[in-house]
Amino acid sequence: MSLARLSASLMEEVKALEKEGRAKAPERVVVGYVPPRDGLGPRYRLAGSDKLFLRMNSNSYLSLSHDPRLLEAADRATRELGAGPGAVRFIDGTFSYHVELERRIAQYVGKPAAKIFNSAYTANLGQGLALASAQTYWIGDELNHNSIIRAMRIAGVPRENRAIYKHNNLEELKKCLDAVPPGMERVVVIFDGIFSMRGDFTPLAEVNRLLEPYRERFPKGLVTVMDDSHGVGAYGRTGRGTEEHTEASCDILIGTFGKAFGVNGGFVASSPEVIEAIRQKADTYIYTNPLGVGDCAAALEAVNIADSPEGVERLRTLQARTQQFREGVEKLGWETIPGPHPIVPLLVRDTARAKRLVQHFFEHGVLVVGLTYPVVPRGEETIRFQINAAHTEADIDYVLEVLRAFQA
Amino acid sequence: MSLARLSASLMEEVKALEKEGRAKAPERVVVGYVPPRDGLGPRYRLAGSDKLFLRMNSNSYLSLSHDPRLLEAADRATRELGAGPGAVRFIDGTFSYHVELERRIAQYVGKPAAKIFNSAYTANLGQGLALASAQTYWIGDELNHNSIIRAMRIAGVPRENRAIYKHNNLEELKKCLDAVPPGMERVVVIFDGIFSMRGDFTPLAEVNRLLEPYRERFPKGLVTVMDDSHGVGAYGRTGRGTEEHTEASCDILIGTFGKAFGVNGGFVASSPEVIEAIRQKADTYIYTNPLGVGDCAAALEAVNIADSPEGVERLRTLQARTQQFREGVEKLGWETIPGPHPIVPLLVRDTARAKRLVQHFFEHGVLVVGLTYPVVPRGEETIRFQINAAHTEADIDYVLEVLRAFQA
Repeated sequence: MSLARLSASLMEEVKALEKEGRAKAPERVVVGYVPPRDGLGPRYRLAGSDKLFLRMNSNSYLSLSHDPRLLEAADRATRELGAGPGAVRFIDGTFSYHVELERRIAQYVGKPAAKIFNSAYTANLGQGLALASAQTYWIGDELNHNSIIRAMRIAGVPRENRAIYKHNNLEELKKCLDAVPPGMERVVVIFDGIFSMRGDFTPLAEVNRLLEPYRERFPKGLVTVMDDSHGVGAYGRTGRGTEEHTEASCDILIGTFGKAFGVNGGFVASSPEVIEAIRQKADTYIYTNPLGVGDCAAALEAVNIADSPEGVERLRTLQARTQQFREGVEKLGWETIPGPHPIVPLLVRDTARAKRLVQHFFEHGVLVVGLTYPVVPRGEETIRFQINAAHTEADIDYVLEVLRAFQA
Repeated sequence: MSLARLSASLMEEVKALEKEGRAKAPERVVVGYVPPRDGLGPRYRLAGSDKLFLRMNSNSYLSLSHDPRLLEAADRATRELGAGPGAVRFIDGTFSYHVELERRIAQYVGKPAAKIFNSAYTANLGQGLALASAQTYWIGDELNHNSIIRAMRIAGVPRENRAIYKHNNLEELKKCLDAVPPGMERVVVIFDGIFSMRGDFTPLAEVNRLLEPYRERFPKGLVTVMDDSHGVGAYGRTGRGTEEHTEASCDILIGTFGKAFGVNGGFVASSPEVIEAIRQKADTYIYTNPLGVGDCAAALEAVNIADSPEGVERLRTLQARTQQFREGVEKLGWETIPGPHPIVPLLVRDTARAKRLVQHFFEHGVLVVGLTYPVVPRGEETIRFQINAAHTEADIDYVLEVLRAFQA
């Protein structure tokens, strides 16, 4: 009865979102996977359609999620230690695979220590909870991922303890640093490595140079936190992401096992002290069951593959396909944001046209994501493509052919 | 360099926690599982010890996490559709197993619709984000789980929009209802079903009776949200948890696949409209990859088992072992909190003695959790035991024997 009132009022809120163009469409349901064959990469079946679809909207950059080595490792681990951990980490829900994955990912990204979370989302919330204090000041890029924005909320950071700079605008970042209120003891500059909607990245080396003269100003540190979920495993000479590409280091790295590594889960990597503070203070680590050992074992296998000659080979293929696609798009006269990352945004700059283009791709069996007003400002309407290592030359040619055939 | 300052200052914060007695001890690492044999239930190996341990601190109430049917279902699903989803739900990261698990858990708990999350923790954050507004007022039990408390933070609920009542004190709840400030359009009464540290539960039928005269007072509804993570699957005549035990319904149910069902992941179940609002507004659903299909398939299998004659049989065993333990504890003259739930708290009421008792159990190969000051108030120091369906009569007898042998 009273739930009926709640339901009705929530439906009004959803309708308002629809009216504004902010509502999510109904979810399509993936019901089948067709392995690569005949020079074509994997295809997917959707509920209610007989077509085979090419996914150009997956984060599985190294195409590892169907690798039998991952699946066998997961199966072996669950047969050894069970499906779920049955407890939180500090109440004997810590298994050998958790500890091993933490050691391995720290080593892979070149940091002394790491903690795993159920997702990069909860890792971001966790670092916020661990670092925040009344004397901690936060400075962030305006395009930071939702999980960083929500981290400020869950950590109870008041408005006067934070500032935002325009996307990748280092002059504004400098102004923010100059304007840190007196009494602040700790300053955290927080940003995405790769920005998920654009494929561009924070110029980490320049940020570090800018921060240098301020580093000694704050008794409890001035540090960088970088969420490189789309970067780690996906680019840089050996897959180390934005740190490798920019030849610079962040102080605290957030990442995921759910994108390039093809599994699920997130992590924070930094000094042993930061990681211990996270273990003691990050509620999204403390009060929830960790990943199952199956996910951990699969992620371990994925990191091992990424860190082998085969991994570098996959990365080369990914880079070649990305370059093929970027060149093709430019040749067809479309505008994009240049960069080395497998996220390739096509700037359409018109909402109706962007929607027609997404539909055109769908009708030709290609899944892409459209970002239209008001999700992005008018004039910045974009189609986002994501290249994966299992995409073949023929796949990319096909997508470009579909793009060429688009009228209007 | 500047990270060194952060690290040093965080270590001081951790040391302060240690001094207060609030720091978590180093994590023990589970490295092996020994299946049930010779009238004994499962045993566990810990890193650095040759002993076999009996876990009396696991939430895996139905002891399903090693069931080969779950593990085979998980393996089959990942071979069919991959380890990780490779995208968020609304960007074609929705797979048949997600939809099927949502349908199945809604049916199991007797609600029209459900959404799955990566954990009950993020489900609680998600309902907060979906329901909160400037005219929404929240009333919660003082002992609510951390994830509900953090939900208030992440949803940006200001102090003037919330009230707390003493644990299970309905008179105070009534006072909170009477004191809802004018202008509030929606009121959410939020509580745990089973309280994880005590094993007692919210008297839902009485809460509903109390709420009845207020139900029409608020244009956007007066509703109950109940987190029954320790209840669903674990008690009630057929395992439906606190709703079944109290013969009453909540409006929005939060639950988990990580405790009785032995896997991982959480859910929200309610009306289709509430669930659609969660899909549209809960950032912890929208902006993070969902569970892998392996976890979904295992959880599906677990729900199917729980919902079968075998499941009821497991529940009977669990209830018998719980009763055996409760009776034994009382016979030995220890104080406990009465109730039907497999969480059995032993009230020690002395911090030093509680710590010695935890150590005594550990030395005798039994893992239990001690809650000591300042985590609980002085005088409420407790040892928490959790009974699982795979515990045998001999296991419970052994634990009671160890308890009996405790001197001081």
